[in-house]
Order: sequence, then C-alpha cells, then structure tokens
Amino acid sequence: MVIMTLNCGSSSVKYQIYDWDKKRRLASGIVERVTQKGSVIVHEAAGKPEYKKEQDCPTHREAIQLIIEAVLHPEYGAISDLSEIKAVGHRVVHGGEKFAQSVVITDEVVEVFKSIAHLAPLHNPANIQGIEAARQLLPDVPHCAIMDTAWHQTMPDHSYIYALPYEWYEKYGVRRYGFHGTSFLYTSRRAAVLLGKKPSETNLIIAHIGNGASINAVKNGCSYDTSMGLTPLEGLVMGTRCGDIDPAIPFYIMQQTGLSPKEVESILNKKSGVLGITGKWVDRRDVEIAAEQGDKRAILCQTIEGYRIKKYIGAYMAALGRVDAIVFTAGVGEKGPIIRQIALEGLEALGVKLDPERNRVSMTRNAETIISTDDSPVKVFVIPTDEEMVMTEDTYALMNGTYDIHTRFTYTFENPSYRNAERLEKLPRDMEKWPGLEKIILNT
Amino acid sequence: MVIMTLNCGSSSVKYQIYDWDKKRRLASGIVERVTQKGSVIVHEAAGKPEYKKEQDCPTHREAIQLIIEAVLHPEYGAISDLSEIKAVGHRVVHGGEKFAQSVVITDEVVEVFKSIAHLAPLHNPANIQGIEAARQLLPDVPHCAIMDTAWHQTMPDHSYIYALPYEWYEKYGVRRYGFHGTSFLYTSRRAAVLLGKKPSETNLIIAHIGNGASINAVKNGCSYDTSMGLTPLEGLVMGTRCGDIDPAIPFYIMQQTGLSPKEVESILNKKSGVLGITGKWVDRRDVEIAAEQGDKRAILCQTIEGYRIKKYIGAYMAALGRVDAIVFTAGVGEKGPIIRQIALEGLEALGVKLDPERNRVSMTRNAETIISTDDSPVKVFVIPTDEEMVMTEDTYALMNGTYDIHTRFTYTFENPSYRNAERLEKLPRDMEKWPGLEKIILNT
Repeated sequence: MVIMTLNCGSSSVKYQIYDWDKKRRLASGIVERVTQKGSVIVHEAAGKPEYKKEQDCPTHREAIQLIIEAVLHPEYGAISDLSEIKAVGHRVVHGGEKFAQSVVITDEVVEVFKSIAHLAPLHNPANIQGIEAARQLLPDVPHCAIMDTAWHQTMPDHSYIYALPYEWYEKYGVRRYGFHGTSFLYTSRRAAVLLGKKPSETNLIIAHIGNGASINAVKNGCSYDTSMGLTPLEGLVMGTRCGDIDPAIPFYIMQQTGLSPKEVESILNKKSGVLGITGKWVDRRDVEIAAEQGDKRAILCQTIEGYRIKKYIGAYMAALGRVDAIVFTAGVGEKGPIIRQIALEGLEALGVKLDPERNRVSMTRNAETIISTDDSPVKVFVIPTDEEMVMTEDTYALMNGTYDIHTRFTYTFENPSYRNAERLEKLPRDMEKWPGLEKIILNT
Repeated sequence: MVIMTLNCGSSSVKYQIYDWDKKRRLASGIVERVTQKGSVIVHEAAGKPEYKKEQDCPTHREAIQLIIEAVLHPEYGAISDLSEIKAVGHRVVHGGEKFAQSVVITDEVVEVFKSIAHLAPLHNPANIQGIEAARQLLPDVPHCAIMDTAWHQTMPDHSYIYALPYEWYEKYGVRRYGFHGTSFLYTSRRAAVLLGKKPSETNLIIAHIGNGASINAVKNGCSYDTSMGLTPLEGLVMGTRCGDIDPAIPFYIMQQTGLSPKEVESILNKKSGVLGITGKWVDRRDVEIAAEQGDKRAILCQTIEGYRIKKYIGAYMAALGRVDAIVFTAGVGEKGPIIRQIALEGLEALGVKLDPERNRVSMTRNAETIISTDDSPVKVFVIPTDEEMVMTEDTYALMNGTYDIHTRFTYTFENPSYRNAERLEKLPRDMEKWPGLEKIILNT
C-alpha cells in the first residue's frame, strides 16, 4: 500500500510517498514560498537525482498539484499512476481536546478543525487548506488526520490547567495542549527499545529542539507534562519564538511603545527567541559560527538556550521522580552538541553523566546514539525523529482496520529488529566524518 | 538607636519600631484600607494590649500620621517623643538595575524610583508616596530604602535575559529582576547558620510562599535565578496572580472576549492564581478547608500549586548542580504542610527525603525547623522570614557607617548565637498545639 503524507505549513508543504509493503520511502520533498511569489518545489525520488521547479503557488492547492506532478514525473517521479496512492495522512497541529488519536477525515472532522482554528492561528488554517485541496485533488482515497496534540491528551489536569480564571478553560478551551506529539510518540517508543523495556515501564524526558522546540515528560510511556501550552509559543527558546516570559511584559511593552496587541504578539512569535537575543540569526548553525568567533550575544544566546533546557530537565526529573533516559531529537537536538552540552553538564547529582566526547561526535541524523557515560544512572540518547513514519503507520492502520489509540497500539518501529534502511545507507558517510561516532551507535 | 521601618503597599502601611541597642521590637502594626473608606490601624506595643482605631486615610500621609499617633499614644504607645526615632527604613519593591544595595534616600534617589515606577505599577507608586509623606512628617531623620530587587543583582545574564528582542532590554529595561529579595537574604543567611557553613559555601533553593510567591536559586550564598521576572507576576501560583502561562493566552483572550489589554492584565494580577482555579478563595486556609470537604477545584488548586513549586525545585537543582538545603518561608511556606508535602514528595531520586510527620507538625512561625529525614542528603528547613530585621539592620548600618553591599556584609542574625527573643516567648504555645514540634526545632 502506497501512502502519501502531507504537512502543510503556512508557507510550505512537506510530503512523503511511502510504500508500506516494501517498507521504503519512494519520494519526499517540499514546496516552499507557498502563497508567496517565487514558489519552488524540491523533490527527490529514491535512487533518482533531485528535481527542482519554480512555479507560483497562490494557494496550497497549486502546491499539492505541483507535488502530484513531481511524483508522477516520467523522469524524476516515484509512481506511474495517481491511483497507486491508497491513502493520504495529514499533519494537523492543533486537535484541541476533541481528538486523542488519529482519525479518518470526514466533513464533520474538518468542521471540528475549523471550530478550533483560532487556537493555532499560525498553523491550523494552513492545515485545513491543505486538507481541503488534497481532498479535491485526490477525491477517491481516504484522508487521515494525525494531530500533534493527540499524544498529550494523557496529561493529568494539574499539568494542563493554568492558574487563570477556570471559566477560561470551560468557555474558551484555555489549557495546556502541547505539541510535537507525533515526534514524542516516535522517540519515546524508540527509547523504550533502546532501554530494552516496555513503553509502559519507561519514564523519559524528550527534548525536541528544532526551529520550534518543546520538551516532554513521559511517565509510564505516556505524556505527563510538556513545555508548549495553549499554543506553540510557550516554553523553550526557539528560532523566533520567545518561550517562557513574564506575562506582564507584553502589556508593559504596549504601554512603553504604543504597539498594538497584534504587533506585540507577532514580535513574540516572529522576532524573538534566538533572533531576538542575537539580533541577527535564526539558524543555530549561524549562531554557532558567530559564537566561535567570539560574538558575545551569540554566546549568550547559546547559554540561555541550553540553560533553559537544563531547567526543564530538572523540573521534569522532579515531576517524574524516576527517569530512565533523556532523549534529544529534531534538528538542533540531533546535530547541536553545544546546546546539549550546556543543557546536560553539571547534572551528576541528578544521576546524569554526560560523556563530552560522545556528545561531540553525535552529529548524525542516521543513527541512534548514546552520549551518557556507561555508568550514568540516567541514559542520554540522541534519537533522530521520524514523524512521517508515525503518520504513515497511523494512516495505514486506519485503512487496515488495525488502528487503535496510541496507548493501546504497537508500532512496527517498536520491534527490536526495526531498521530504517534509508538511514543506514547514509550512515557510513557520517561515520567517516565523525571519528568515534561508530562507538556510540545503538541498534544498527 | 530606635529605628522605624515602613512598608507602604497600595492600600496598606505596615510598620515596626525596633530598639537596636536592646534588640527588642517596641511596636508593630498595620494601617489597612489606605486610600479607601474605613481605614483602620491595628497597633501593638510590646507588653501592651492591642490598639485599634478607625479613621479615613485618603493618602499614605494620613496613614503615617495615624501610625505616629499610635506609637506616641500615652497608653498604647511605644515611645514618648518622636525624636527617639533616629532613622526610617522604607521597603521599595522595585529598584531596577540601579541599586544592588540599600541606600540613604535623597531627592535624587526618589527621582530614580519615579523614573522606574512603571516597572512595578502596582507597588512602586505607593512606596514613593510613603517615602515622600514620611520625609515630610519626619523631616529631621535620615530615611533609607531597602529594595526587594537588590538581592537579585548577582544573577548571571543567562538567568535574567529573556528570549525577546535584545533592544527591549537596552531601551526599556525588560529583564528578570526578581523580588522578595529581603526575605531571601534573611532566610539564606539563617540556612547557612543551620547548616554550619559560611553563606559563600551554601547552595540553596528558597521558596517564599505567601499571597505573593517566588522561589530563589542561591549559589555560593548569592541569588543565581528566581521565578519572578520583570514584575511580580511571573512564576509560581499566587493568591490572585497567575504566574507562568503561555504568553499567547492574553492575546487569545482579548480576541475571544473583546476585553482590553488593561482588563486582561488586571485579571492576570487580581482574579487568577488560587482565586482563578478555585473560583472562590484567595486564602490558602479556605482552600484547605474546602479540600478537606472534598471540593474538587480546591484539591486541584493545591495539587497545581504544589506541583509547580516541585517543578521549580527540580529546575533549580539542575541549575545549581549541588544543593545543601531547600527552605520554605512566608505564610504558606511556614504554615502550609499540604503544599509543602505535594511539592516535596517523590524527590528521593534527587536526594530530598521528606519526613511527612515532621512536615505535618511544622506549623510555627516562632522557630526554625527541619522537615527532612535525618539521612536526607538535601536538608529541608522551614525558616520564618524576618524582612523587618534586614530593613532595620541595613538602616542601622547605613546610619552607623558600617553598611556594605550584602555580598560583603555580615548580619547580626548570622551569628550562631542569634535568637529572636519575641518568638521564643511565643513558642511554648505552638509546641503544646503541635506535639512533636519540639523534636524538629533547630537552634532555640
């Protein structure tokens, strides 16, 4: 069964075509600058050269058309007929309180997404547009929704209720929802495999650090608390988002500057975080280079970013009582040894012993590694995330009638013998580049 | 030398008259409902019955006049002539970045307070009015300012810089300042005494939990991080303040309800926290009674409040690496065993072993107690705070020419033989009421 997954952002559409039976990715890619001028698709099918095409996409519909064209391309494509695609899985950022699991999309489901779109104004409208366009363009196959929030519906109320007027929760749904759930689901199950335990026996702290960043306390295999809240603005330092601040600051800034609420909200989302502290950079690689050259604001930024991850690690160690492993994942989590070092150093009293050299060479996205010392009571893993795999398997299982809520579902990647073939092919290159990497790879 | 301390809130003035040479409190009291109708003073001089008088105080000036009248009262007073008072110490909530220590108040100092009054709009204007009125009414003596923020000026930049546009820090002073510094100073020095260490050798986590609440990571005797920020709104759950929330929530609520920024800010400060969650109560004793009777929202409120203290304890354990003791202080911290229990249970893996029975009977404000087990690697103390003592000693030392910044100053209460005579007199009553209390009292 060939399954397509779509991840529609406000100005991009990421996709993957996966052959479930052969367990192979057939193609993947991204359309960027959607709804803007100069849209471009970058597409790559297995075993074929990269394909690039510029063509304006005023809406997500044109972007998905561009994807279909690339996927069917005689030279660069992955399939010969659209009918080979048997189902589409859509990423939906905010599922509110209504969904604790993935679902087949019906008109009613779309209506629910529309009714809660105001909870994730930066994300959900694009998700909905993508779903509607894809259902029109691929009308004969089922579409499924995989929600970032579903994973976190196991959180206890003391984790998700804010100290705000309770009627704001009842009337307006003001509570902690949490995001990056698909990534936390994947990495938590992989961590259980690496620990040789059942998910229900594992307590974990997972730091998903990318442009967006959040951290998850996992208790007995289920989400117990997380740093993002009503929206993806709360918590850690992100590329352009501020994370935790004094809630009085926006009011103070409005009063001092005369900026409107909309303008301040936009600055907190788009001009803060790494960009706010450094004043120049969003990309952590740029910050790394500047820090190496002695730029004080870049060094400060790294210190703050790592320090705030460290504080959440401590907070969740206290919340969980016992922790089997800390996991780093996503772009910076997988390839950012400096941030990991700052976050993890000096935690020996809490049972976390980082091996600095292991940490330094863990720079691959193609293998799972251990960066704690052999005698560290709490293990530290770097686990490349694979949200598309969860989306694909949920979609497959929904089609196959074998799906169940994640608390009762065993994914194929929970099998100790599970291997990601495509990553293993790329790994030797990384091992050449990072001497010592081979010694810390788990489960290849 | 007789010293008067004044703590002017927006609608109250607290005061104390202290004889430095005899080391005795001569009188203390409070004027409530200042600037409102029905103002009332409640005054008590040592060894005399309580004195109460209703008299409208349209401004802080009338309140201070009422205090002077009570202090000089032939029957209920404490001194016979105003000239006995040799100096006045004023509490100032926000000293901004300009003051890392207490100072003698000059016209220039008042101007600085006025220039930063917008940073603490709920507190500083009243502080300034109190200073101006007191300087008029007691023009012949020096007035000193003791600032809540001074203690925290030792924080490193990675603790105080937010992930916001850096120019907001440069232009508008947006940073973490921290509050309750006078209380943290007192309790940290007392904790060092109880540990038998120098302050510079002690790492502590101090939870000041009253109607306002904040928590302080103390490294080598100095403030390293704290939960309150630009204003006293950030951090823990408070009586009516929300503490940490997703910074997107105020914008979402404005959009959903049509409330103005001013209205939402007021709700976050005055209708949130314990009042917000329970919908009914601000006072933790009321919440305790309701929780005992099975009220679900009251139980939820206690759980959230304790859970959020626990997360900060973990965060600061990670930040500090090594912690000698956790300290609870202020109203709830000193007399709230349920909140302490929730905050401290299950932290054995982090080296904190609570003794539940010791915790249960630690209900006195008249002695310092230990509530951890004898073999707990991290000690847990309950230390009644004494902000007035710090204010009095700073004022005395400023007058005496012996004052220095707190990092180079040794307070009289750091002497192992220091005893608070007045508290010791009251203690036997508490010991009768709480059997077992006598076993956990330190240093009587």
